[in-house]
Amino acid sequence: MKSPTLFIFLFFLVSSSAHPTGKKQRSPCKNLVLFFHDVLYNGKNAANATAAIVGAPEGANRTILADHFRFGNVAVFDDPITLDNNFHSTPVGRAQGMYIYDTKNTLTAWLGFTFVLNSTQHQGTINFIGADPIVVKSRDISVVGGTGDFFMHRGIASIMTDSYEGDVYFRLRVDIKFYECWQ
Amino acid sequence: MKSPTLFIFLFFLVSSSAHPTGKKQRSPCKNLVLFFHDVLYNGKNAANATAAIVGAPEGANRTILADHFRFGNVAVFDDPITLDNNFHSTPVGRAQGMYIYDTKNTLTAWLGFTFVLNSTQHQGTINFIGADPIVVKSRDISVVGGTGDFFMHRGIASIMTDSYEGDVYFRLRVDIKFYECWQ
Amino acid sequence: MKSPTLFIFLFFLVSSSAHPTGKKQRSPCKNLVLFFHDVLYNGKNAANATAAIVGAPEGANRTILADHFRFGNVAVFDDPITLDNNFHSTPVGRAQGMYIYDTKNTLTAWLGFTFVLNSTQHQGTINFIGADPIVVKSRDISVVGGTGDFFMHRGIASIMTDSYEGDVYFRLRVDIKFYECWQ
Repeated sequence: MKSPTLFIFLFFLVSSSAHPTGKKQRSPCKNLVLFFHDVLYNGKNAANATAAIVGAPEGANRTILADHFRFGNVAVFDDPITLDNNFHSTPVGRAQGMYIYDTKNTLTAWLGFTFVLNSTQHQGTINFIGADPIVVKSRDISVVGGTGDFFMHRGIASIMTDSYEGDVYFRLRVDIKFYECWQ
Repeated sequence: MKSPTLFIFLFFLVSSSAHPTGKKQRSPCKNLVLFFHDVLYNGKNAANATAAIVGAPEGANRTILADHFRFGNVAVFDDPITLDNNFHSTPVGRAQGMYIYDTKNTLTAWLGFTFVLNSTQHQGTINFIGADPIVVKSRDISVVGGTGDFFMHRGIASIMTDSYEGDVYFRLRVDIKFYECWQ
Repeated sequence: MKSPTLFIFLFFLVSSSAHPTGKKQRSPCKNLVLFFHDVLYNGKNAANATAAIVGAPEGANRTILADHFRFGNVAVFDDPITLDNNFHSTPVGRAQGMYIYDTKNTLTAWLGFTFVLNSTQHQGTINFIGADPIVVKSRDISVVGGTGDFFMHRGIASIMTDSYEGDVYFRLRVDIKFYECWQ
């Protein structure tokens, strides 16, 4: 092997395997699509509710969503996660955390929650935070960490409102793309 | 080219482009300075308020900040973001999320929020969490993720209280340094 | 040095110092074990309390934890951090943030908090989020960022309930393993 050939080969090897500029490529190392189902307590559905209003602005109560696009409502949830969009499918885990309605003149929320997965396929947790402009078809939030099968993972989750029924039920489709995976 | 020269050159190339020890250098790959403006609802400013108290300890209400350094108050906000410190400048986005006053004997808050940027310069979101010891001049919180133009970014945000008026208004200067950028 | 030898050596050098597949190894670059102590306000312990209920479902108050496994209670805290399990040890910092009881049929919480460390050994903050299935002996949450001595760090924290007294006091042991350290 002559030197120039060796040099070119090695330069390619180094370039393709490291990130000299600190910038990294957008190619998912893992992908997961899941659904979760939120049934908000409204004073009448105690048996089925998976979420409850726990914070509200002055003058509002905690069984009826607040005026002005629910601005100021804080809800806590423990929602079933399913592999498809059927509320009655066997859950593969729970989505646990909170959402906060944070705008007066349109419907937006701030999300902080965790997927706690417990199935034959997946064991571990995935942690999310981000802004949810609900009226937009697909919204991106951050996957900021994970444990178990998702040890140290980071990525982006695209969420879509797959269905809703009045103020009581909504179903979200969550398309999780991990861009940072660890062994 | 002789072998020793080639070896030295290649060693340098490898050393400078990867992180053999798992430790990484502190050099920002992107920097952004923005301001946001919070007007807290106090029972009289419904038209202008961009934030509201939605949680409070027993005995406190939600139009007056709580005693003992506001301990226990939870506020939800949707605040305009501007490029300079002028409240009347055209917003380039919204800061959305919550702050929680969490100490009884000094003024500190816990922050969870998102910058939703929507301007000719920037499209995307930046997600923050961290402790805010308000009486300290400059406080560092974590940038834990981003979307759009800030896809997968991480960094540190240094926040300073740029101005405030009583209990109703404050303006924060946010100096965001990204240390992890993705293409 | 002959070419084949050089090639093999350089291939090893590149392979061991970069992550061609985007997958990274699980070896902690730093480890820290700390304890924190939470005294929840119950209407009688104002002088000692370090936490307070600030959100509750309809029908519940904020001095007594809610029925159904505290579902819907939001607590804000500023708890002392110690190096050992003694509540009276000199604190090395404060744990500040919130916990949210989010399940109706077992005891689980969602956590968002920060360790603010201020001692001769450590100066800086560590930011955590995650689900806490309290009845499980050891639970893993995400370390999503840090500042100061913990600049840009990420990792996993294993939390254990080290002690508790009724509804008023609990002590958590937090075993933090950082897998991403920065200089």
